[in-house]
Amino acid sequence: MRLLLIIGIGAGDPDQVTVQAIKALNRADVFFVVDKGTDKQDMVLLRQEICERYAGNRSYRMVSMPEPERDRRSPAYRQAVERWREERAGIWAEVIGAELADGGCGALLVWGDPGLYDSTLAIVEQIAGLPAMDLEFEVIPGISSVQALAARHRISLTQVGSPLYITTGRRLAEDGIPEHCDDVVVMLDASCSFTAVDPGTEIYWGAYLGTRDEILLSGTVRDVGGQIQAARGEARARKGWIMDTYLLRRAKANPA
Amino acid sequence: MRLLLIIGIGAGDPDQVTVQAIKALNRADVFFVVDKGTDKQDMVLLRQEICERYAGNRSYRMVSMPEPERDRRSPAYRQAVERWREERAGIWAEVIGAELADGGCGALLVWGDPGLYDSTLAIVEQIAGLPAMDLEFEVIPGISSVQALAARHRISLTQVGSPLYITTGRRLAEDGIPEHCDDVVVMLDASCSFTAVDPGTEIYWGAYLGTRDEILLSGTVRDVGGQIQAARGEARARKGWIMDTYLLRRAKANPA
Repeated sequence: MRLLLIIGIGAGDPDQVTVQAIKALNRADVFFVVDKGTDKQDMVLLRQEICERYAGNRSYRMVSMPEPERDRRSPAYRQAVERWREERAGIWAEVIGAELADGGCGALLVWGDPGLYDSTLAIVEQIAGLPAMDLEFEVIPGISSVQALAARHRISLTQVGSPLYITTGRRLAEDGIPEHCDDVVVMLDASCSFTAVDPGTEIYWGAYLGTRDEILLSGTVRDVGGQIQAARGEARARKGWIMDTYLLRRAKANPA
Repeated sequence: MRLLLIIGIGAGDPDQVTVQAIKALNRADVFFVVDKGTDKQDMVLLRQEICERYAGNRSYRMVSMPEPERDRRSPAYRQAVERWREERAGIWAEVIGAELADGGCGALLVWGDPGLYDSTLAIVEQIAGLPAMDLEFEVIPGISSVQALAARHRISLTQVGSPLYITTGRRLAEDGIPEHCDDVVVMLDASCSFTAVDPGTEIYWGAYLGTRDEILLSGTVRDVGGQIQAARGEARARKGWIMDTYLLRRAKANPA
């Protein structure tokens, strides 16, 4: 039997790693790292920093897994993602099958939390279902960017007895803010979909949360929407990539 | 100026505390502890264990804050909670004002994450608004019970490109599972409101997550709903309290 640990390592601040994650980092003989090319070099360095800081005093191997090209122009988003997952699963099964010995312990590090908009778990579940893999897996939760966002803005994501909706930029653009819901967290938004909501809506936005590049902006969409778009575009151009998330809070009908 | 740290300490497993939280625990001279009476003695002990394990080698004070009675029979839920918060804010302002010296650092420990259905932040924000308090505050995120639930069941809370709805038992009973949303996390449900959803819905339930009393059950509501109700009632009677949460996942219209 082989064991694979899926470890949430937080949103970017190495201090936001849990004791449980540190223990897990120290159990692994092999770290499997997805090679996304050069554009997210900062994240590769940050991940290395976490490994060195918390699992540095021992020997382990880093094994890279190539990333297949994803068809981002396909209108059938879900199908494109599923096809891409199939390809990734094939690669992972091959690499993990070859590099993780019987009785060995491997690890996959996940930014944020493995349970929130991350495909690692789905792929591991799929390859663990192949009898030839003889693979068990465990999941270690991590602080998500949503939590880092709320903490840095010093706000609660939820209001008393009210629901919270977590969605993607694509779905916000399609569905808007759902009825009977005043608080919406938006992730994976490449298109600043907040520009289409009621301009009185409050927005709490954050990018590169927990890192030294962190940017925080908040106010009504009317007041800070343009500023967020400008900051986002500038940072993305300068760094070559961006990770951001935000909370939308519906304007009160009768402000106190 | 006084500083108050609002520290998320995870859902129950002392290993799920972050390095950032440990550093914060070690900055505090005074821990303010809400005295909820005797019925959640386990949680008091667990919190003590966390303090001793991570901040044990130094001197600090524990100051208890009495908890006002909350009117749980009031039909006006939100108003009752808000009145209760006002009373708590008065008590906290008095105790913190008297016990936290100028230049001192206090801490409030929050189970789970301070941004998810927790009133600590709202109360601190309110008392920090009183000029006489001269109070600054910081928030440190923590692993929530929702994340502990997903990790222990080894599931993702989200599906590809789909939204996640986080709500309360009360709201689930009123609103049901919202349209266009297949995944609903339910917290603070004292009434097993999952019994009213389509019995084909999958449920992933967990209680006392991360502690030695942890219970996990999953399946369709049809298959395990009764079992969850029985386990919940039994555990609650035996221990005098329960903390549980669950994910509902809508049955696929066309099962593969």
